[in-house]
Amino acid sequence: MEVPKASDVLAGNLRERILSGEFVEGTPLPPERELVTQTRMSRTTVREALRILEVQGLVRIKAGRAGGAFVQRPGEEDMARSVGLLIRGRQIRLSALLETREAIEPSCARLAALHRTDEDLVVIEAANDAIAGSGTDLAGFLQANVDWHVAVATASHNELLTGLMMALQKAIYTSTENESFVDEEVRRTAVRAHRTITNAIRDRDPDAAVRRMSRHVHSYAKALLAVDKRTEIDIPDAD
Amino acid sequence: MEVPKASDVLAGNLRERILSGEFVEGTPLPPERELVTQTRMSRTTVREALRILEVQGLVRIKAGRAGGAFVQRPGEEDMARSVGLLIRGRQIRLSALLETREAIEPSCARLAALHRTDEDLVVIEAANDAIAGSGTDLAGFLQANVDWHVAVATASHNELLTGLMMALQKAIYTSTENESFVDEEVRRTAVRAHRTITNAIRDRDPDAAVRRMSRHVHSYAKALLAVDKRTEIDIPDAD
Repeated sequence: MEVPKASDVLAGNLRERILSGEFVEGTPLPPERELVTQTRMSRTTVREALRILEVQGLVRIKAGRAGGAFVQRPGEEDMARSVGLLIRGRQIRLSALLETREAIEPSCARLAALHRTDEDLVVIEAANDAIAGSGTDLAGFLQANVDWHVAVATASHNELLTGLMMALQKAIYTSTENESFVDEEVRRTAVRAHRTITNAIRDRDPDAAVRRMSRHVHSYAKALLAVDKRTEIDIPDAD
Repeated sequence: MEVPKASDVLAGNLRERILSGEFVEGTPLPPERELVTQTRMSRTTVREALRILEVQGLVRIKAGRAGGAFVQRPGEEDMARSVGLLIRGRQIRLSALLETREAIEPSCARLAALHRTDEDLVVIEAANDAIAGSGTDLAGFLQANVDWHVAVATASHNELLTGLMMALQKAIYTSTENESFVDEEVRRTAVRAHRTITNAIRDRDPDAAVRRMSRHVHSYAKALLAVDKRTEIDIPDAD
């Protein structure tokens, strides 16, 4: 049997009180020496517990006179980071990444068509303009491409799907940093597909959005997985 | 500007060397005192760095003579835990949870129909038998229900989708622990739906699997979200 570490016990206790709302976002936890007195644990143990919470994105530790461990809500980035750890640490296959994307992105597009605000639309269109304007700059193209997909996810107003997309896009960016795949034809096709999907989102047409996004990510996945076998990449239009 | 903490720098360095495969799974990292000598950091800092890696699921610290920080790969559970933190910490709406489930589960069913092994099928069927046999025991029903959905995800042989489903199911379990929703009719309908989906997975029929799973999770979501407004819950069959 394993005896739980004192710092894990304390971190778990503080975590529950943060998640239950007892400790309010933006306010500091009781200071270190107070926690030492309350728990009768050593200073090192208390500090370790606070660091664990920091790593999990539940507090932000500030040094100095007005310092302390300030409560924060875990964000999409924290989740994206741990999804990223799984992807790298388990060497998740590119095909598994793309399957997950094919599951999630059509739903994002559907929800974006239902819930997008005018501000969301501005961000989506700016990203697509940046793709069209990226010329022959591979990094510029890939970043604008990621931005567009994340903007669509954000417009779904579903934080969970948004966090997942942030994690997936980062991994997909890395795996498609490939000059021989991302040629001019691939870029032109992506811009065109994004335009038709953006139109559906603008027109609040969830069925067209889901259909076009499915076709787009499916074609992209197929083309990417075939890149070793072919010299010419062929991604059909989205609609 | 913020100066990064020494323990974060060391944790980041060790993390990269674990993820790159330099430190092999199952082997211990260099012992604490060796890291102290190498890095000229304090013992407390080194220990903190190792604890950070432990919280992220990248090492497992064992005490005692044959102890040390043993390298492990981050697992689905680690990812599920951080997805769970986001769900609780951000008080993700039940509808957002269910939307995410509707995005992911049909793809899991499709991939399970394509990739399931005979062993996968045994686990899926055992879970469905447990649901049918749970009688009036709410906790028993909910656990067997979660087991069935996770078994289908596992049969997809996509670790990323499996990890996501593990996280979602835990949150859905909690939000449906509701006697007034899970009545006898809901249970009977779930067992029936699961049977037809299981049949499609057994027959390696991805189209039927995706269609039936879509219908099942969509009906369940609709009924669950309507539970406040109605007294009688009506979930149509899966096919």
